[in-house]
Amino acid sequence: MRMYDIIQKKKRGGVLTDEEISAFVSGYVREEIPDYQAAALLMAICFVGMTPEETAALTFAIRDSGEKPDFGAISGFRVDKHSTGGVGDKTSLVAAPIVAALGVKVAKMSGRGLGHTGGTIDKLEAIRGFRTDLSAAEFAAVVNRVGLAVTGQSRTLAPADRKLYALRDVTATVDSIPLIASSIMGKKLAADDDGIVLDVKCGSGAFMKTEEESMVLAKTMVDIGKRAGKKMLAFVTDMDRPLGRTIGNSLEVAEAAETLAGKGPDDLLSLSLELSAAMLSLAGKGSLEECRKAAEDAVKSGIALETLAAMTEAQGGEASWILDPTRFPKARCRAAFCAPQSGYLVHTDAEGYGRAALALGAGRARLDDHIYPAAGITLLAKTGDFVKAGECVALLDSEEEARLDDAKAILAASTRYGDAPPVSRPLLLACVE
Amino acid sequence: MRMYDIIQKKKRGGVLTDEEISAFVSGYVREEIPDYQAAALLMAICFVGMTPEETAALTFAIRDSGEKPDFGAISGFRVDKHSTGGVGDKTSLVAAPIVAALGVKVAKMSGRGLGHTGGTIDKLEAIRGFRTDLSAAEFAAVVNRVGLAVTGQSRTLAPADRKLYALRDVTATVDSIPLIASSIMGKKLAADDDGIVLDVKCGSGAFMKTEEESMVLAKTMVDIGKRAGKKMLAFVTDMDRPLGRTIGNSLEVAEAAETLAGKGPDDLLSLSLELSAAMLSLAGKGSLEECRKAAEDAVKSGIALETLAAMTEAQGGEASWILDPTRFPKARCRAAFCAPQSGYLVHTDAEGYGRAALALGAGRARLDDHIYPAAGITLLAKTGDFVKAGECVALLDSEEEARLDDAKAILAASTRYGDAPPVSRPLLLACVE
Repeated sequence: MRMYDIIQKKKRGGVLTDEEISAFVSGYVREEIPDYQAAALLMAICFVGMTPEETAALTFAIRDSGEKPDFGAISGFRVDKHSTGGVGDKTSLVAAPIVAALGVKVAKMSGRGLGHTGGTIDKLEAIRGFRTDLSAAEFAAVVNRVGLAVTGQSRTLAPADRKLYALRDVTATVDSIPLIASSIMGKKLAADDDGIVLDVKCGSGAFMKTEEESMVLAKTMVDIGKRAGKKMLAFVTDMDRPLGRTIGNSLEVAEAAETLAGKGPDDLLSLSLELSAAMLSLAGKGSLEECRKAAEDAVKSGIALETLAAMTEAQGGEASWILDPTRFPKARCRAAFCAPQSGYLVHTDAEGYGRAALALGAGRARLDDHIYPAAGITLLAKTGDFVKAGECVALLDSEEEARLDDAKAILAASTRYGDAPPVSRPLLLACVE
Repeated sequence: MRMYDIIQKKKRGGVLTDEEISAFVSGYVREEIPDYQAAALLMAICFVGMTPEETAALTFAIRDSGEKPDFGAISGFRVDKHSTGGVGDKTSLVAAPIVAALGVKVAKMSGRGLGHTGGTIDKLEAIRGFRTDLSAAEFAAVVNRVGLAVTGQSRTLAPADRKLYALRDVTATVDSIPLIASSIMGKKLAADDDGIVLDVKCGSGAFMKTEEESMVLAKTMVDIGKRAGKKMLAFVTDMDRPLGRTIGNSLEVAEAAETLAGKGPDDLLSLSLELSAAMLSLAGKGSLEECRKAAEDAVKSGIALETLAAMTEAQGGEASWILDPTRFPKARCRAAFCAPQSGYLVHTDAEGYGRAALALGAGRARLDDHIYPAAGITLLAKTGDFVKAGECVALLDSEEEARLDDAKAILAASTRYGDAPPVSRPLLLACVE
């Protein structure tokens, strides 16, 4: 089987066999297939596409490209939740403790953030002492005891994805549904959870800009998961505006803790409850409605917050910060971003707000950039709110004075005012079972 | 200007600017742009295509990527003829001497053959002593004195083409009209002739299989040449069957010499006269009809054969072999390929006959393969002829006995017999001015 023939076949619109796809992925990981041939195939896939069978075969080849974590020591149904990446999206930190508090295991292997979207691992590392490099035995022990643990993805997990993603990133072959779906699902399936809930973000701050393409991605990933024998459910949710009131690592952990304490913003709470309900329902805990009610009760009773604190404690972090989020250290500099005119906030562009947080030091533009845990944005007004000229729309936190002005300029270009409140779409756009 | 943005723009169907194309080509030649990014762009071009302006810009960037030969010492109008590659195509060896004999300079920089098609340089090197590595001064002196010289392409001529072609060859991005046209014309324009006649081969033995795509390639190359201020003319000619009676290096030089001596096959003579007429006409020597008559006369009078002999002499080769082609050394082994049945030869597949010659050692499957000058095929019957069962259709020559059977098997699969003569298309299919 020659790589040349595989490229040629796909270029001419052909359907690759499982063997051809597997030969490509394993040959590429073993560095027997050079980058330039892989790049040519990826570009051809961008144009020709892949059938559901090809997409599943690519996913399974990525899943099988490395060592699989041994979760044999973890008892019970395990469910995971994955977001395609948004701005201010801290739903994992809210939903996972709810689900774990209700007896369903969450053994979460999570990634770091890149660009204008954040990663759960970076957020948790804002808690002093929090370890994200648990050994397999430690990880299993925390999951069994607390119901929930979060660790970083090991470099041996689906290495084909890392290699393929790095290549796609420099060859303009990122935006292809089968390539995106196989990348996400390849890693998720390597973790071998029993159920997976997907949150496909849609809008300016997300990778998928339209509802149509978000739906295709959601359906594609659900199809892959089902072919692998997993319980699957996907939501398509709005990401035109940031989720919740904060963007930035410690700010977001604090907001998640406040939400579990019953003091969070409505949008974050409602989406987190929806995701929790889906996760619980996949685990056989009842109908979506019954599970939503159980999730609400887990927040009200405080057991979800206690679970987040227990996990923090078990992973070496300052659990007291979770119970009293005012203890998170503050950034050195703060500035206010104020409305230059009176009017309704008709658009707070999620991608722009994400880039502003990046400018403040809350994220990384490149893989080796340093993150400032306390840097970020706190929204005092949200899309739809009326603000007066001079009123503060957002607070900006950074360790460096100079970054504040950069971020303000990005926010100014990302915020629109109008005479009437905007017609905004619902947060939850669709559900794919 | 980032290569990523150039790839992305083309992938999304955009039109690249001259600056973007030039940045790509020069960056790639300087090895600042890696193969994998170039491969991604080439594949995107295969799908999206290029406008005539982009194709010309790519051609000019390839033309300008290396050192230009200094032909300042050559006086008069210079014309070249280029074929896209066929089987048994030795028209350059017939047309160039005719044109030079009639006072138009032919300063030919030619390539080597690869795969089932041959190259003029390989053919001339079948003449003992023939040097194809003339210095610039030697080359100019021969052209000025004889009217004609043929030299190999220097490695500094349009190096972007060599690098791009090698990459296309392993990434299944060869078959794209703008990439083919810019590759051919980039090298041709680097030689800076005043006029160029193109022979776009069409059919099984050619790169272009259909008349339609051959016409598009011909028009694309004529357009590029005119944009560069060159006099241009292109023919589309049949390559479903081999041209003339021989395939293989010394066999073809001998056949060309015989044709100039008035003893060649009709198809080779008529196409060579057509190409000569076009070359002369571009040089202002009269109408196509007048030039065709002059070309015929140059053959009849013997001055064209004398010119080929004079060039051979001037380039260090055995001119006596040109004047008496029986002097070319014979291969060690010979076999006859005979008809297994009586009938009309309805198809002698050019690509198959080319591959058979390759199997005999007449060409190279890989760039570093060794060529046997005397190996090849002599056709005793051609498409349309009636043959009896057992009658010899072709003679096969090789240095190794074992190769004869391989070649015979290929010929058997490439030859079809029928009860009636085939309806064959004319040799000259179209002309593009």
